Amino acid sequence: MKVLVVGANGQIGKHLVSFIQENKNLEARAMIRNEEQASFFEDLGAETAVVDLEGDIDSIAKAAEGVDAIVFTAGSGPHTGKDKTIMVDLDGAIKTVEAAKVAGVKRFVMISSFDTRRKAILEAPESFAPYVAAKYYADEWLRGTDLDYTIIHPGGLTNDKGTGQVKAGFDLEIGKIPREDVARVIEATLENESTIGKEFQIVSGNTSVNKAIQSV
Amino acid sequence: MKVLVVGANGQIGKHLVSFIQENKNLEARAMIRNEEQASFFEDLGAETAVVDLEGDIDSIAKAAEGVDAIVFTAGSGPHTGKDKTIMVDLDGAIKTVEAAKVAGVKRFVMISSFDTRRKAILEAPESFAPYVAAKYYADEWLRGTDLDYTIIHPGGLTNDKGTGQVKAGFDLEIGKIPREDVARVIEATLENESTIGKEFQIVSGNTSVNKAIQSV
Repeated sequence: MKVLVVGANGQIGKHLVSFIQENKNLEARAMIRNEEQASFFEDLGAETAVVDLEGDIDSIAKAAEGVDAIVFTAGSGPHTGKDKTIMVDLDGAIKTVEAAKVAGVKRFVMISSFDTRRKAILEAPESFAPYVAAKYYADEWLRGTDLDYTIIHPGGLTNDKGTGQVKAGFDLEIGKIPREDVARVIEATLENESTIGKEFQIVSGNTSVNKAIQSV
Repeated sequence: MKVLVVGANGQIGKHLVSFIQENKNLEARAMIRNEEQASFFEDLGAETAVVDLEGDIDSIAKAAEGVDAIVFTAGSGPHTGKDKTIMVDLDGAIKTVEAAKVAGVKRFVMISSFDTRRKAILEAPESFAPYVAAKYYADEWLRGTDLDYTIIHPGGLTNDKGTGQVKAGFDLEIGKIPREDVARVIEATLENESTIGKEFQIVSGNTSVNKAIQSV
């Protein structure tokens, strides 16, 4: 299974491409913004595609040609300017969904925020609410397609070393999770068709990633 | 016909409520954020409803109870912080659409931006693109409903006195238009069922508002 990783140069993305390249069932194509970011991925033996996520749908679709799945893990993050929240977290995500349709790629894994329900927008601190709203609409757009999607809602991201032990479900209490473990969850999601049409939250826990994913 | 004007305290909104109150076929309910904004509308004999557009859908739906049409003319404008672009221009607009469904109000008039096509997002100056994207998604959301909608795309807004003479159509050359004339176009749109399911651009021109609206 060939996987286009959108946002490959992000911290989750780099872990994910590494794991994919080590997995005999998977191979990665890293979608990156600049040619200078390519060497990291080339060293892993991964393909690269240089595409500006703020560009048009067709250029993303071209990068997706011939892959079996797309993972959207690009993110301006909640602390960048709100212009990027619109252009990347909202519009970049939705254009990638549209590009999947254009390229005929059915499988789509979206990395969302921990809670993107409407209630969460209302209850979020004022500075965070726009980010939650952007992610809400990106998730809603994906739900409205007939793609084979999975939406992953990770808790608070840390740079701690992964443990491979998580808790997955819905209406979980907010908790933290290392980015490395999120990447492991994405890898397991790609390998488990039972996750199609589902969405779940993940935080650190004491169940192995594969088992946790299979129970959602 | 009773009309809920969302964003009544804006410049277009104030003109619009005035025109509605002078029109024997129409009456206005002004949706405003603060009680202190009420006197302007009470002096016109209009009802008011104090609702925070950044609040929940139900409070907007409550304000829409018993009206026959909703006009969304709230706008943070392209020059406010991008957080408000998300919370008002995107989320506020979409929540109002959802509120229309909840309240069972079929007729919906959306005041959009001059060009909200995907191409316009790409071609907009970097500082303006997030606003165009927000309006694009709000318009798209409305198009995906079965409401009796009209989407109006005005040119560059000015505070000049209205002339009552406009040009309406699509793929128009960008031009300016007084806010007062936009309000006249909204009034005429409410009175012309032929505008249902349509969207059009408007700029200043040399056709009377009613005639221009009927030809779109």
